[in-house]
Amino acid sequence: MTAKAKYGDKAIAKAKLIPWDNPNPERDYTIEITFPEFTCVCPRSGYPDFATIRVAYTPDKKVVELKSLKLYLNSFRSMAISHEAATNLIFDDLKKALKPRQMEVTGDFNVRGNVKTIIKVTL
Amino acid sequence: MTAKAKYGDKAIAKAKLIPWDNPNPERDYTIEITFPEFTCVCPRSGYPDFATIRVAYTPDKKVVELKSLKLYLNSFRSMAISHEAATNLIFDDLKKALKPRQMEVTGDFNVRGNVKTIIKVTL
Amino acid sequence: MTAKAKYGDKAIAKAKLIPWDNPNPERDYTIEITFPEFTCVCPRSGYPDFATIRVAYTPDKKVVELKSLKLYLNSFRSMAISHEAATNLIFDDLKKALKPRQMEVTGDFNVRGNVKTIIKVTL
Amino acid sequence: MTAKAKYGDKAIAKAKLIPWDNPNPERDYTIEITFPEFTCVCPRSGYPDFATIRVAYTPDKKVVELKSLKLYLNSFRSMAISHEAATNLIFDDLKKALKPRQMEVTGDFNVRGNVKTIIKVTL
Amino acid sequence: MTAKAKYGDKAIAKAKLIPWDNPNPERDYTIEITFPEFTCVCPRSGYPDFATIRVAYTPDKKVVELKSLKLYLNSFRSMAISHEAATNLIFDDLKKALKPRQMEVTGDFNVRGNVKTIIKVTL
Amino acid sequence: MTAKAKYGDKAIAKAKLIPWDNPNPERDYTIEITFPEFTCVCPRSGYPDFATIRVAYTPDKKVVELKSLKLYLNSFRSMAISHEAATNLIFDDLKKALKPRQMEVTGDFNVRGNVKTIIKVTL
Amino acid sequence: MTAKAKYGDKAIAKAKLIPWDNPNPERDYTIEITFPEFTCVCPRSGYPDFATIRVAYTPDKKVVELKSLKLYLNSFRSMAISHEAATNLIFDDLKKALKPRQMEVTGDFNVRGNVKTIIKVTL
Amino acid sequence: MTAKAKYGDKAIAKAKLIPWDNPNPERDYTIEITFPEFTCVCPRSGYPDFATIRVAYTPDKKVVELKSLKLYLNSFRSMAISHEAATNLIFDDLKKALKPRQMEVTGDFNVRGNVKTIIKVTL
Amino acid sequence: MTAKAKYGDKAIAKAKLIPWDNPNPERDYTIEITFPEFTCVCPRSGYPDFATIRVAYTPDKKVVELKSLKLYLNSFRSMAISHEAATNLIFDDLKKALKPRQMEVTGDFNVRGNVKTIIKVTL
Amino acid sequence: MTAKAKYGDKAIAKAKLIPWDNPNPERDYTIEITFPEFTCVCPRSGYPDFATIRVAYTPDKKVVELKSLKLYLNSFRSMAISHEAATNLIFDDLKKALKPRQMEVTGDFNVRGNVKTIIKVTL
Repeated sequence: MTAKAKYGDKAIAKAKLIPWDNPNPERDYTIEITFPEFTCVCPRSGYPDFATIRVAYTPDKKVVELKSLKLYLNSFRSMAISHEAATNLIFDDLKKALKPRQMEVTGDFNVRGNVKTIIKVTL
Repeated sequence: MTAKAKYGDKAIAKAKLIPWDNPNPERDYTIEITFPEFTCVCPRSGYPDFATIRVAYTPDKKVVELKSLKLYLNSFRSMAISHEAATNLIFDDLKKALKPRQMEVTGDFNVRGNVKTIIKVTL
Repeated sequence: MTAKAKYGDKAIAKAKLIPWDNPNPERDYTIEITFPEFTCVCPRSGYPDFATIRVAYTPDKKVVELKSLKLYLNSFRSMAISHEAATNLIFDDLKKALKPRQMEVTGDFNVRGNVKTIIKVTL
Repeated sequence: MTAKAKYGDKAIAKAKLIPWDNPNPERDYTIEITFPEFTCVCPRSGYPDFATIRVAYTPDKKVVELKSLKLYLNSFRSMAISHEAATNLIFDDLKKALKPRQMEVTGDFNVRGNVKTIIKVTL
Repeated sequence: MTAKAKYGDKAIAKAKLIPWDNPNPERDYTIEITFPEFTCVCPRSGYPDFATIRVAYTPDKKVVELKSLKLYLNSFRSMAISHEAATNLIFDDLKKALKPRQMEVTGDFNVRGNVKTIIKVTL
Repeated sequence: MTAKAKYGDKAIAKAKLIPWDNPNPERDYTIEITFPEFTCVCPRSGYPDFATIRVAYTPDKKVVELKSLKLYLNSFRSMAISHEAATNLIFDDLKKALKPRQMEVTGDFNVRGNVKTIIKVTL
Repeated sequence: MTAKAKYGDKAIAKAKLIPWDNPNPERDYTIEITFPEFTCVCPRSGYPDFATIRVAYTPDKKVVELKSLKLYLNSFRSMAISHEAATNLIFDDLKKALKPRQMEVTGDFNVRGNVKTIIKVTL
Repeated sequence: MTAKAKYGDKAIAKAKLIPWDNPNPERDYTIEITFPEFTCVCPRSGYPDFATIRVAYTPDKKVVELKSLKLYLNSFRSMAISHEAATNLIFDDLKKALKPRQMEVTGDFNVRGNVKTIIKVTL
Repeated sequence: MTAKAKYGDKAIAKAKLIPWDNPNPERDYTIEITFPEFTCVCPRSGYPDFATIRVAYTPDKKVVELKSLKLYLNSFRSMAISHEAATNLIFDDLKKALKPRQMEVTGDFNVRGNVKTIIKVTL
Repeated sequence: MTAKAKYGDKAIAKAKLIPWDNPNPERDYTIEITFPEFTCVCPRSGYPDFATIRVAYTPDKKVVELKSLKLYLNSFRSMAISHEAATNLIFDDLKKALKPRQMEVTGDFNVRGNVKTIIKVTL
């Protein structure tokens, strides 16, 4: 199923992830990225949600350009999307753009209704 | 043995856990939930007990709706139940409602009589 | 070798550990207990020693009643016993009383003579 | 591919890593080194970048002399080099100088554009 | 090679490690000891070095008497010895005195020249 | 205005604070008490609220007996009362029971609706 | 100068702060509120800014209703406003709505361009 | 009133505080002492109590010899005495032995019945 | 004495601090800025020095534009200047550019030769 | 009384503190120095003592050269001197060498016999 089919039109209007050449594709090494300023909108209440997004991957031919990743994550600011769907969608988009050898994406969401939730998707 | 047989009538009057469709059943991923405001009543002394409940699971077809989980956990407020029984009962109810691929439920109880207790139940 | 043979008469005058029925013997789960107020007497210097005792076990048919555990640990207050012997003795007594499926007992002793010592006994 | 071919002339004008004899080559043991004051220049913006470099290795015949390592790492101060390339280059230079039995080099870079990055290269 | 051959006369004038009988040789258990006040002299600069020494071992027939360990470690105060050699020598001396089933000795040295070093030797 | 007039009948059905004689009324000294397990009910939503209550006072003729304080604070469990009113009511009741020379009562409430609130009342 | 004159039309379209009666106006006490999820837009770069807003005040006749404060602060989400102006504007609006006896408003903004800024306005 | 009159015979059988000459009585300076291993017995329940005792004072002609202070504090081990009385008694004994220019004694007691208590006595 | 007379030509080639209009000059409020990535060169050893610079001020007519402050602090990267002189120079330049009502500048330098130094200059 | 008269011959064989000109004597500012690796010898037991020495001062005409301070503090390594005397002696020597406008010297000593001691001398 395509991202469009799963998440609707809105979800695919996001900023583009730009891949760069991996300077050392001859070996396995890991890149861990932390973005503590993710915000989107709760699809039920309409209130803003906040999370820290963490990405850890072993690049194959491509690494993600960091500014494009920031703009991509900023582009969720007005999107109405659940915790589970947001984390899985980021995973899908990075997987398609980078085809990494390994990857884990974590959405560590702030407390809502006294409940804290962390979603973790692994290749 | 049913929950009723094990814990008595009172235990089954709890708020209902509402399952939602898992948006990404095609892959294994984990959902970690922390609820720091659990309280029940000690069956021996009648004094209140306090705990943080943690649930980590890999959903299959269903995820738990978070507000129903909060109301379910709030419903232990007047229940007289031991540390071990409370943690196992939450595990049983979530297992029945979600049929997860993997799950761990932890009851991290505050100190009582200078003793701190943590109960951990794993699928 | 019996506890009496190993540790002498004094060591066996301790408060009794009371086992209770495990409410969920049908599954493996763990109980972690922390007691930060353990004190005994150094057999060489006669000065008091202080430790945190941690017990983590998978119950079989029995769990330990917490107040009896507190009184049992309190009963070391005037006992002259080394770090190693105290930790092993607590392990022996719990093992005999509970016959757990798994167990680890840790004696985390305060600094003495600028040296900190932690003893860990595992089934 | 040589370091010169991969990173250009500038990268090879660095201070020399001095190997010393390992006093205990008859056994495997590990040496962990942390250098919190690494700085180089971002090849895109021209702004300074800052990182903590960590090296953990099992020496074979040689260990690195610490002052030469400090001068080597200081020599990146005016070099324009990306996070990924800097970490991989340090790994390459240490590997050539020490031929260690095992090694991991980590470049833990400060936040840039609200994004934190950690690069980890393992033998 | 003997300690004398490897480290010279000075290194063997140290205080003696006193072994005591292990009260529980019938089972494997671990003893972790931390000594945060180790100091010796840098063989190059003549300046003092400072470290925390950690020893974790599974005793066989013998445990180390703690006061003799403190005096043994205090006896490095005027010894000129490198980080690597000091940690390996402590390992050698403990191994000879205790013949443990397992052992790890760690020398966690304070920053020198902006570089922090940790040496870890495992049986 | 009496407590009854301000807070209604329900508020005055609380457990009684028991004053004891101050053993050292001849000097000023302070007693700081922390109770991390306070819970009451939100008068608007009906959901439970949680707080840590802190009391710091300079006793005059009386000190508060600690078990009666615990039972007094436990008695708010089913009371519907706002953050501000609960903290001021505890202050009023302690002031009447102890007539302290100085006192500060703090209600440090858990986050509700992403907002954390601390109420501090000082004599 | 009115808020409109200083900050423009956009700034006055914010959600309304709702004042409630202070239940204890007969004494001075303080209310400290922390809101860790403030976000607005940088007027120069157009990028999102993030901050924790803290309000500490001594109420006179009125206290602020917490949900209206949350909605008020949420309403900055699309406003282009500097760190200094946002903090001063929140101070002005709260002062007008509550007429507090004392008040301090703090805007603790996340790092931007490697620089962290905290603005503190006191009555 | 004498210590004997206030606390009974038992309280005056304590180890003696030994004063030493202050090496620098020509100036005011402070000495802060922390003893984390204080234990006595609760006069109501008979259970052990635990506390950290802190003493901060400006010596006049005398400073307290540290080993005598340790033995003095150890001598409370079997004494049945309340939190308030123990802290005030330590204050009285130190004041009589040292006649300090300034002094503060703090008894920071572990949680009992979910309530934590700190007693602070100042000259 | 001018900055040129005190610190030499090199010191005055720094990037320019850009003042902006204070949006709220009608009241006193404080702006605290932290810059954790300051580096200059030790005038004695030629080795790099690292520091966190903190500025706290009450603006009068002007506030400092943050990007110009970052570029100004970056411009010390190749300057040979002592801890004391660097902190005082930053203070002088900010004072001249902003004429603040109050100001404190702190240079919190990393350990050198096992010694940590913090310089604090207050208006 | 001279240092020689008070502390004996040994105490005055210490390395010399070298004063440098204060680059900014026209204003009051503070210099805080922390030296975490101080060691001397206990005059009673002959065992080593360890401390962190902190110096905070407002220079007048002179600042202390940091390497000379390190060598001065290193020179206590074999000196038998009490906690109180060591801290007061460092204060005396710095006062004589620098004639500061204000100064505080703190000796923060490691635990001995379960007792931690901090000595603070203020001008």
